Amino acid sequence: MSDTIFAALDRLAIELPSWGFANTGTRFGKFIQPSAAATIEEKLCDAAEVHRLMGCCPTVAVHTAWDFPKGLDSAGEIARRAESKGVRIGSVNPTLFQDQEYKYGSLGNPDPEVRKRALDHILESLKIARATGSKELVLWFADGSNYPGTANIRHRKAWFEEALQTVGGMLSADETMLVEYKPFEPAFYHTDIADWGMALHFARKAGSQARVLVDTGHHYHTQNIEQIVAWLMSEGMLGGFHFNDRRYADDDLTVGSIDPYQLFRIFYEIFLFGWEQGAPPEISYMVDQSHNLKNKIEAVIQTVSTVQEVVAKAALVDYEALARHQDRCDLIDAEECLRKAFRTDVTNTIFQWRESRNLPADPLAAFRESGYTARATAERGSRNRAGAASYVES
Amino acid sequence: MSDTIFAALDRLAIELPSWGFANTGTRFGKFIQPSAAATIEEKLCDAAEVHRLMGCCPTVAVHTAWDFPKGLDSAGEIARRAESKGVRIGSVNPTLFQDQEYKYGSLGNPDPEVRKRALDHILESLKIARATGSKELVLWFADGSNYPGTANIRHRKAWFEEALQTVGGMLSADETMLVEYKPFEPAFYHTDIADWGMALHFARKAGSQARVLVDTGHHYHTQNIEQIVAWLMSEGMLGGFHFNDRRYADDDLTVGSIDPYQLFRIFYEIFLFGWEQGAPPEISYMVDQSHNLKNKIEAVIQTVSTVQEVVAKAALVDYEALARHQDRCDLIDAEECLRKAFRTDVTNTIFQWRESRNLPADPLAAFRESGYTARATAERGSRNRAGAASYVES
Amino acid sequence: MSDTIFAALDRLAIELPSWGFANTGTRFGKFIQPSAAATIEEKLCDAAEVHRLMGCCPTVAVHTAWDFPKGLDSAGEIARRAESKGVRIGSVNPTLFQDQEYKYGSLGNPDPEVRKRALDHILESLKIARATGSKELVLWFADGSNYPGTANIRHRKAWFEEALQTVGGMLSADETMLVEYKPFEPAFYHTDIADWGMALHFARKAGSQARVLVDTGHHYHTQNIEQIVAWLMSEGMLGGFHFNDRRYADDDLTVGSIDPYQLFRIFYEIFLFGWEQGAPPEISYMVDQSHNLKNKIEAVIQTVSTVQEVVAKAALVDYEALARHQDRCDLIDAEECLRKAFRTDVTNTIFQWRESRNLPADPLAAFRESGYTARATAERGSRNRAGAASYVES
Amino acid sequence: MSDTIFAALDRLAIELPSWGFANTGTRFGKFIQPSAAATIEEKLCDAAEVHRLMGCCPTVAVHTAWDFPKGLDSAGEIARRAESKGVRIGSVNPTLFQDQEYKYGSLGNPDPEVRKRALDHILESLKIARATGSKELVLWFADGSNYPGTANIRHRKAWFEEALQTVGGMLSADETMLVEYKPFEPAFYHTDIADWGMALHFARKAGSQARVLVDTGHHYHTQNIEQIVAWLMSEGMLGGFHFNDRRYADDDLTVGSIDPYQLFRIFYEIFLFGWEQGAPPEISYMVDQSHNLKNKIEAVIQTVSTVQEVVAKAALVDYEALARHQDRCDLIDAEECLRKAFRTDVTNTIFQWRESRNLPADPLAAFRESGYTARATAERGSRNRAGAASYVES
Repeated sequence: MSDTIFAALDRLAIELPSWGFANTGTRFGKFIQPSAAATIEEKLCDAAEVHRLMGCCPTVAVHTAWDFPKGLDSAGEIARRAESKGVRIGSVNPTLFQDQEYKYGSLGNPDPEVRKRALDHILESLKIARATGSKELVLWFADGSNYPGTANIRHRKAWFEEALQTVGGMLSADETMLVEYKPFEPAFYHTDIADWGMALHFARKAGSQARVLVDTGHHYHTQNIEQIVAWLMSEGMLGGFHFNDRRYADDDLTVGSIDPYQLFRIFYEIFLFGWEQGAPPEISYMVDQSHNLKNKIEAVIQTVSTVQEVVAKAALVDYEALARHQDRCDLIDAEECLRKAFRTDVTNTIFQWRESRNLPADPLAAFRESGYTARATAERGSRNRAGAASYVES
Repeated sequence: MSDTIFAALDRLAIELPSWGFANTGTRFGKFIQPSAAATIEEKLCDAAEVHRLMGCCPTVAVHTAWDFPKGLDSAGEIARRAESKGVRIGSVNPTLFQDQEYKYGSLGNPDPEVRKRALDHILESLKIARATGSKELVLWFADGSNYPGTANIRHRKAWFEEALQTVGGMLSADETMLVEYKPFEPAFYHTDIADWGMALHFARKAGSQARVLVDTGHHYHTQNIEQIVAWLMSEGMLGGFHFNDRRYADDDLTVGSIDPYQLFRIFYEIFLFGWEQGAPPEISYMVDQSHNLKNKIEAVIQTVSTVQEVVAKAALVDYEALARHQDRCDLIDAEECLRKAFRTDVTNTIFQWRESRNLPADPLAAFRESGYTARATAERGSRNRAGAASYVES
Repeated sequence: MSDTIFAALDRLAIELPSWGFANTGTRFGKFIQPSAAATIEEKLCDAAEVHRLMGCCPTVAVHTAWDFPKGLDSAGEIARRAESKGVRIGSVNPTLFQDQEYKYGSLGNPDPEVRKRALDHILESLKIARATGSKELVLWFADGSNYPGTANIRHRKAWFEEALQTVGGMLSADETMLVEYKPFEPAFYHTDIADWGMALHFARKAGSQARVLVDTGHHYHTQNIEQIVAWLMSEGMLGGFHFNDRRYADDDLTVGSIDPYQLFRIFYEIFLFGWEQGAPPEISYMVDQSHNLKNKIEAVIQTVSTVQEVVAKAALVDYEALARHQDRCDLIDAEECLRKAFRTDVTNTIFQWRESRNLPADPLAAFRESGYTARATAERGSRNRAGAASYVES
Repeated sequence: MSDTIFAALDRLAIELPSWGFANTGTRFGKFIQPSAAATIEEKLCDAAEVHRLMGCCPTVAVHTAWDFPKGLDSAGEIARRAESKGVRIGSVNPTLFQDQEYKYGSLGNPDPEVRKRALDHILESLKIARATGSKELVLWFADGSNYPGTANIRHRKAWFEEALQTVGGMLSADETMLVEYKPFEPAFYHTDIADWGMALHFARKAGSQARVLVDTGHHYHTQNIEQIVAWLMSEGMLGGFHFNDRRYADDDLTVGSIDPYQLFRIFYEIFLFGWEQGAPPEISYMVDQSHNLKNKIEAVIQTVSTVQEVVAKAALVDYEALARHQDRCDLIDAEECLRKAFRTDVTNTIFQWRESRNLPADPLAAFRESGYTARATAERGSRNRAGAASYVES
């Protein structure tokens, strides 16, 4: 058991989002944490602290507009700052939703100038990625419409195809672009890339370097996410994940906090695929959460620990026996293969793995003992005053 | 206004399902109607009666196991019976779920003998279709699994690909197979063809004669069905519809009875596409409902009337103005183009169209006056005793 | 027909929310409109403009923290300003979610000091209501928790009971407090007042002056809202509505824009109740929408027009015939009573009603001709620069 | 740890449904198991076999029409047969949905004669309960409507109130009636007792002996079931559970098979309540599942094992520490109290408990070794031929 789990944990890398360390909230307001990060420097510090404790988070996802306010000019310097702290720049996320120009969409906007602006921003983000050593572009579009009849769905589809083809055509063989889907919010009536089928369509149009990104919170209620994962793997089109959990909408809660068995089933499909292929598939595991109430770094530690736990359990499934039971339609026996692995308490084995890799067995406790939050509060607190945005602008 | 509506109604044909005239129910039991049809002869009679009244229902969808108990042998005779009543055999639906062999699936069954049996049944259905003059095979699969880990999702996908490719390869240029999707029921954990993206994948694998069928009740809550319709049309892959409505699950209620504006938006997308292309797309409009409580023929008349009404309204949209508003992002003006058409009361225009085509203006009243139900009750009632299946078998 | 509709429209009053005229958005940002209102003065102006055009919006709902930054001191003056513009202050909404103190709840907060603060704010809001002549307190609580186990649901219930009892005890016989429910957002795991059953419980605890408020966007998918409305009326506990529409979450879209038939069914239940009782029930009809993309005043005019249209149709139902059909379980005939009324185009009758009341027949056109938006842009535009809050705080 | 778990398991009794051993299915058909039970005799045998193995299933829920075809006459004899096998008759469930008379409802039917018939059946069921020694009546109503406008929701509510008051008035102090709720199926547009708030209303109307029953599959998607459980306990109105799991609709899958953490959270709320009160609440734990594909007895063993596992985990939560963390809003620490307990592998402790109670440690293995299924197949198989009901009646 230990060997299997150790091997699985050794292979596991989880990318942290820079924005997961910043003050975020809901449309009803933000609850400000005095120790939260505001600058890219601070976000990299926080991410590096998590990597120091967990050992499996070597890269940091960045958002172009939030983290590179000076654009390409600052990219090299930021990459060096990251490396000096012990992390690297991971996926680069163009910021295609908050500017006033994007009111009616970015690549799906009926106005060709706005479409061009959005495309330019993506291409600028690609340059930033290259300047930072990143090989991955993650594309999430907030495009859509709020009311029936206000947008031509097929025209917008064509505009997306055209632009994504352009982006895909710029990528070299070691670069990837991931296309994300989301069925709602902030567009309420229709979203231009609403589900995995639409994302797959665009990824295929974009050429050989494009894949689909699965954000676990971007689904309809009751949708079987692990089936989508299995399908995308079987097509060679699963690029990566944005992990989080939710109850109702895209709540961006800590992964596994609402439905840990679902997360386990996702990894079970991945491990089963790897077992059949003889090698684990190459997938980018990224976190995308909004820690509105929990201490942000503690929430990230909890997140990474949860993924490790679930990965360890998925590694424990007896795939040989499972395949036999599935083949014979021995339903209960097949199901119990999963349940047995999920039931296993892997806490101590993970602790042992951490110690064997010179990491603190209990990273949350270690973080709390480190005094990091108190120091961050002292340094950043005066800026992080309450005074955050309200539901209404005034 | 009249011209536009008359033209739209002249073009509209709606296929009725033979099983819509039979006693159906829920897992909790069936409420038996004495006038319900049991044999294919009776179902054809009922469908022909609707066509006599409505003038737009020339074909009847059939289910292989229910309507051709003698298989191919009876096919020619049944087609002749249909024609003698004034209708024709429409889409042929292989019956791939009720036999005990299909407990763990049909084309997705791990047992190759069951898969072969299912494939044979589909090919037999194709022969039946040809013997009846039908050009359309409609494939709905109940395949899936009830519990995590009990089925290998990717293996089943491969088995489906293989078999559907075989079927597709048998079709000639004037024949079509439609692949239906459904996210749940009767399989509860995973469905092998769960959404439009999966159906599209299989249809493409099946070659040039395959298309996707959209059953309006087979979606996740809040899914934007008209967007799926628009996407499938833009890919040339929308083959047809199974119309019905629902609130929670696949309730198979009268189309438009719960959300008439949604149905209107579906037809708006179809008319918009036709307006842009210069010609309406070729789509099979079929009804798939379960009239558990309403008189079955009356429910079908209500259904066809509702589709006519919604089609008439969709025809009334000012597409010229709409396109302009969409282009300029004049949201309220664009939306009001739809709302204005939907708001229009087209009842009298439809009455006029019917009269001009020598049809009763009020087909429901005409049916009630005809005495048909009383005659059917007299003929069929003694067989249709209560005594239907219970939730538990005993 | 005209008489029935005229009478229904004469009785109809719709309260507009002050915040519906301000710049609002989603957690991903706000799209700023240069003509949007920021101060209570400007919001009252905008509401008065709508009332001038529509004639049925005499009151304006206010939010304590947003509209009374000086608290009670400014209340009388604001009420006078409203009256000078031709409107009155309607329901007063305490603001119990945006302050940093409310991070873990307001009345449900484990900290008794925060609970007291929240209660004091409600009581201050009651004083403001009295100072403005308002008779109605509308209580929406964002209270809840984001993660399992982090909150004691029953303790919080008890704290709510206690505080609401205090508020209820302060009300005189002509004052009302309405308790709103919402199953999600901004709390993601549990909401303290999640559904109508919980709101009803608290309203009953709060005594004779408390009722339940139904926000049409605050429900689970597929929940039958009109049934809740019927139940609350039958218990004498329906106090009012917050109207809006949605597809996925609490999207706060224009009422009736996604599912107009649902809105019609709500009013059908209200009219049926009134028909049985011999008099329409006393219900506060309020709008609660977030016009993120549409011009705000135009969206409100569209909203009020939609409610008028649906009310006119609900008034047209033949309740006498309907009751007879329901009694005999003539399902299709009963259903057609509703469908016939819904199908009727009441546009011209509403135009006639408006003209007979010296109102513009087409208020949207009249508003556009008035030049109001251009004036507001000139006056307010320089303040309403882009620069709105971002997803991340920096 | 062992002591806590042993005590919790000693207290746990789980009632099995007679219909869980019979052939059931979906509206698309039933997959027949040759060893399935058909008569009450066989069902009692199967239930007794499970009790022999698990030791915690002393009672069997019965359905009046299915299990007492001779009504009251056979009741005493059936109770004696049960006792001779080592079990007792548990809750009695009137059968109020399958007879043709109930097409438009039972207690909610507009026809007073049907309402009387339904009431009589409930009172007959009460007599049967008394004749069998049962103290519990479980009332599930399929009542509702399929189409808007076809039923008067408030009149039906009044009829339910009246009848349930009559039933409640007949109960003595040691008898209970439980009112179940369900938002959909088999009624599709509205269900007369759609949610916990409606069930609570009727239970209160029915007097001191009535409580609410929570069927875990009878909720809207994303509804927080454990909150409803907590609320009902705080009102002293939680009577019992029907356990099962589901993904989309009321799938009646094995409890905990889709979302085991949700089941854990339900028991956490129950244990927390018991910890605060100093004694566990009196709640009837009943299973209500439809084992369409799994071997029925094996599925029941799996079900009971799952409940034991989850109960053992809920018993392990450190409620002292949890309460402290909740009080201080230490979110992560509070949450980790739950997660730690859920993570604990209690398999071996449960095995030890079983052995200490002279039960097989692995009841599923013991059952398989027993040869029971082979014997049942031999005895019952010839009757359980395929030939089950089809979707369409013919």
